[in-house]
Amino acid sequence: MSTQPSSLPTLASQDLLPESKFTILVASDIHLGYAEKDVLRGDDTYTTFEEVLQIARAKDVDFVLLGGDLFHENKPSSKAMTRCVELLRKYCLGSKDIPINVVSDQEVNFNHSYFPVVNYEDENLKICLPVFSIHGNHDDPVGKEPLCSLDTLSAMGLVNFFGKYVNIEKIDVQPLLLEKEENKIALYGLGAVPEERLHRLFLQERVDFIPPEGNSERWFKIFVVHQNRVAHGTKYLPEKFLGNLPDLVVWGHEHESFTEMTFNEENQFYVYQPGSTVATSLCPGESAPKHVGLVHIYYDAENDTNSFLMEPIPLKTTRRLICEDINIDNLLSNRGDRDDDELNQVIFEFIADKIQDVINMAAVEHSGDPREPKEPLIRIRAEYSTDYHHLNPGLFGHRFIGKVANPKDLVMFKCKRNRSNSKDSESFDRGELDELMEFSVASRCNIDDVIYEYFANTDERNKLTLLSEKIMVEAIKEIVEKEQTTDRLAQAVDFFRIKIHDMVTNESAIYSENKEEIEKAIKDAKDKYMRDEARVLKELKHLFTQASQSNGDQDMTIDDNMSDDDFSTGPTVGKSPPTSSQVSTSRARGRGRGRGAGRGRGRNATQSTQGTLDSLISVKRR
Amino acid sequence: MSTQPSSLPTLASQDLLPESKFTILVASDIHLGYAEKDVLRGDDTYTTFEEVLQIARAKDVDFVLLGGDLFHENKPSSKAMTRCVELLRKYCLGSKDIPINVVSDQEVNFNHSYFPVVNYEDENLKICLPVFSIHGNHDDPVGKEPLCSLDTLSAMGLVNFFGKYVNIEKIDVQPLLLEKEENKIALYGLGAVPEERLHRLFLQERVDFIPPEGNSERWFKIFVVHQNRVAHGTKYLPEKFLGNLPDLVVWGHEHESFTEMTFNEENQFYVYQPGSTVATSLCPGESAPKHVGLVHIYYDAENDTNSFLMEPIPLKTTRRLICEDINIDNLLSNRGDRDDDELNQVIFEFIADKIQDVINMAAVEHSGDPREPKEPLIRIRAEYSTDYHHLNPGLFGHRFIGKVANPKDLVMFKCKRNRSNSKDSESFDRGELDELMEFSVASRCNIDDVIYEYFANTDERNKLTLLSEKIMVEAIKEIVEKEQTTDRLAQAVDFFRIKIHDMVTNESAIYSENKEEIEKAIKDAKDKYMRDEARVLKELKHLFTQASQSNGDQDMTIDDNMSDDDFSTGPTVGKSPPTSSQVSTSRARGRGRGRGAGRGRGRNATQSTQGTLDSLISVKRR
Repeated sequence: MSTQPSSLPTLASQDLLPESKFTILVASDIHLGYAEKDVLRGDDTYTTFEEVLQIARAKDVDFVLLGGDLFHENKPSSKAMTRCVELLRKYCLGSKDIPINVVSDQEVNFNHSYFPVVNYEDENLKICLPVFSIHGNHDDPVGKEPLCSLDTLSAMGLVNFFGKYVNIEKIDVQPLLLEKEENKIALYGLGAVPEERLHRLFLQERVDFIPPEGNSERWFKIFVVHQNRVAHGTKYLPEKFLGNLPDLVVWGHEHESFTEMTFNEENQFYVYQPGSTVATSLCPGESAPKHVGLVHIYYDAENDTNSFLMEPIPLKTTRRLICEDINIDNLLSNRGDRDDDELNQVIFEFIADKIQDVINMAAVEHSGDPREPKEPLIRIRAEYSTDYHHLNPGLFGHRFIGKVANPKDLVMFKCKRNRSNSKDSESFDRGELDELMEFSVASRCNIDDVIYEYFANTDERNKLTLLSEKIMVEAIKEIVEKEQTTDRLAQAVDFFRIKIHDMVTNESAIYSENKEEIEKAIKDAKDKYMRDEARVLKELKHLFTQASQSNGDQDMTIDDNMSDDDFSTGPTVGKSPPTSSQVSTSRARGRGRGRGAGRGRGRNATQSTQGTLDSLISVKRR
Repeated sequence: MSTQPSSLPTLASQDLLPESKFTILVASDIHLGYAEKDVLRGDDTYTTFEEVLQIARAKDVDFVLLGGDLFHENKPSSKAMTRCVELLRKYCLGSKDIPINVVSDQEVNFNHSYFPVVNYEDENLKICLPVFSIHGNHDDPVGKEPLCSLDTLSAMGLVNFFGKYVNIEKIDVQPLLLEKEENKIALYGLGAVPEERLHRLFLQERVDFIPPEGNSERWFKIFVVHQNRVAHGTKYLPEKFLGNLPDLVVWGHEHESFTEMTFNEENQFYVYQPGSTVATSLCPGESAPKHVGLVHIYYDAENDTNSFLMEPIPLKTTRRLICEDINIDNLLSNRGDRDDDELNQVIFEFIADKIQDVINMAAVEHSGDPREPKEPLIRIRAEYSTDYHHLNPGLFGHRFIGKVANPKDLVMFKCKRNRSNSKDSESFDRGELDELMEFSVASRCNIDDVIYEYFANTDERNKLTLLSEKIMVEAIKEIVEKEQTTDRLAQAVDFFRIKIHDMVTNESAIYSENKEEIEKAIKDAKDKYMRDEARVLKELKHLFTQASQSNGDQDMTIDDNMSDDDFSTGPTVGKSPPTSSQVSTSRARGRGRGRGAGRGRGRNATQSTQGTLDSLISVKRR
């Protein structure tokens, strides 16, 4: 049996074996309910889900295969759930004989379900479009008897929910065996597992793909998974872990939409990453046009071989996202005799012009489909490398209300420091932090965004009370005694914030973007960390000592006194046991989001300590 | 056309006109998901909902009619939603021709729905048991486009959700017109409306029941409603508001289950109150055996008359609730030379014996159905009228774990002061408050319970910080200066708590038992009230002045300086404009829950003010 590129038929040959050909519409990460309270974007996800179902009906596919995150929230709103049900009922119910037999033991495949049977076999429902789905990290089962919205849809008979593991210490992935004429598909699915747990389970050989009985080679094997694909630490699923069982891996969770499959030479399988159908982060990876994939699977009885191809179908309703990087160093270095206000006015107009260009470009690129929203999502990243206390990004919104979908966060300023200043590879560099934050995994971006927003939107006073008042007082003392600038304080806050951020992201319990959950986790981590005040004080003093010994103005070395081996929940980075300093530095650089903490204006800062802080920090503010 | 009692057929005559007879199973307030995290009670609501559906199938009814509150929470858990869907799919789907024609305009009846058609008319669904439901106050639509779980069930085609009003200032109640042979039913429904709003709308003649076209008299008219039935203020729906249009009113929301209908002579209609299928409060009203009602509606073509009867069907799976009142005054007055510990031991054993008696009684009363849980709910109310700082009710739980379903709140102590001490009709009397709190409206009880529990479970320190620290310090000064006992402090806290409680319950925005929502409302009300510190201080001083002038030890007169006309959101009590003093007194007496605030032990009371408070309050504690 071969699934080599050479054996892929062309689209033109599609009707060679029409009777037995499986046609599957593959989509993922539909995120129903994302931004549903946004006036402009509220209905985006529903519109595109409808488009996906319409494509499936128009192409008369055998079934739809979803790679998880059908919902954006683990507990979707009544609106998200109701809209989803309406669309499924509208497009999936109807008169049609589904020519696919399930020949595996459905009691095993759907053992979590009250109705352990594929929906189109229920004689009380007329199903014309079966949907099979695993769950993602957004809509994963929770609770004592873990249940999620897909369980509800499955109970209704609207979705065939599979790949739900019940044992978290040993996962047997059982295939759904589907036959259409003589064509045989083994459909393996594994709903989202916390990354590090799955990584560990694979390393411990506790994940088994159960082969079909009899001649296992006879089956075309598809594996649907919802994990990080891009490497970072142990928080991803290396393709090599999957061995050589699958012929095709459908990779959900990653939001970047690819029109071509990749071939894993070593393991001899293809990977198809459909990407999300909606941009949930303003990342470049999300700005590529969104697609779904029509997968055609053929069986050639004469040679007893399968072949398949994936036909990407562009989505016409997805709201366009355009990300552009610009550099404002020229404007900064050629400021002439402009005062700060004049300089900012020049920069403002420069960026605003760029935004207008992008708006014009988006209009040209519009699909023409009336369902595609007119207002694009735009993200301008304005980089600078010299000292500059930048404009409030919110200012740009006013000019573009009604023209863009995200007036509030059109612009992001990014300080890109010159790396050559940094002699020490373990140095604490905000620019680098920013860089590292921008890996392409959109879902990762999302959680970070929530955490980032938590700090960004919290007013200055709350942000600073990340450190307890006592620690703050000590920090100020240190600054005064060691004649440090107040920048040090911001850096110290950043340092502790990254520590806490790290504790949060390393807690396996946090595996969703549920804002309340994350905020609670942040609070818990903060409380846990700050409980040992003596230790924090020691770390703080060490930070300042290191800083005052250091020559570089931008660096703050963190040595092994800063190791966080107390926090046993955290993973190690890389596979060989790292030294403490490696661990903490890697973390600080690899995962924190080093935005300056000294911006914004504290409100209600009535306490005297706070008053002092405010005046100190205003040195750094514009 | 007649629906007089005299024309009611007997059960024996049921098969006189079998072809055209409507048989409807009426149930209400199923509260799916109530106490779902309780180890013992977690599945109670699902078990009984299944029983209801089984009865409907066994009796081969034409449809099930639900009076609202199918779900306990506005946003049910995945478990509650999934279990509900499983049961509906299991019992409502199947092969059967439904012999009922909907002859009204379904686009009007279901105008809120994406599929504005009764579920059994959808050819893609095989429905053997249609369910019609209005929404209750627990599962009411929320959001900008108001949606609730019933909308989701309706989108699936599992429930026919009707009576959803879209205009909150003018309600036209449109009937579903159902025909079975020559028998004609007009089914009117109105989902829960905030009590005061509906009361006002009726007074303003802004609620219209649209009569069926043509000969309106030809239709048997059922009206399903979900409001308070018992009078208190304007927070209920007077039966007389309904005019003489309906023949039968199905009254949801009230949890007490009645086996007989009542006849409203003035308006010439029957009222059937099925009650809830589960006890959600430990109120005597909830302890009556639970029933659903089988309503048979006949049409006599010869005389062109309808007649009907209601056959109550006891539920066999509902967990038993037994409430008992006992009086411990004898034990208190005959304490002999027992010290406090010995006295409490005697009281403990006396009450524990009573609990054991009730457990034995519950065993005898068990339905014998294996699905009825063995462990009953028990509430012993121990009354006393003399000074007694009672036992912690939690103590009783330890002895009865595994024998009762609610070990934590088996016992409630109740101080029943002698009313004759109170000369002033406007006096502040805790016993009376308790009395007034115990009106039979279970839902009312529930909200109060949540508010009560909020204060009961909050530790002492939080409870006292209901008053700001400054107010507390002033209160202590007053006590010291005016040589008051610390009881006064507790009374002052009570006074303010009732004020705040009142603000909360009078806010029409709070109309559910969602704990978080209520807690937030309490916090908001507290903040709002305490904002005007000068005013609160004035009220406080006045309280103490009144108290020191008063002879009665138990009374604290509240005069018109205490009026709360600043709080314009509150309703008036009664119909004629009350004086300020009437308003505030009535409120204080009518709605507060006057439990003493001086119990429990403050934790983390590190502040000096708090330390003082703790030592003062300990005078009152055992």
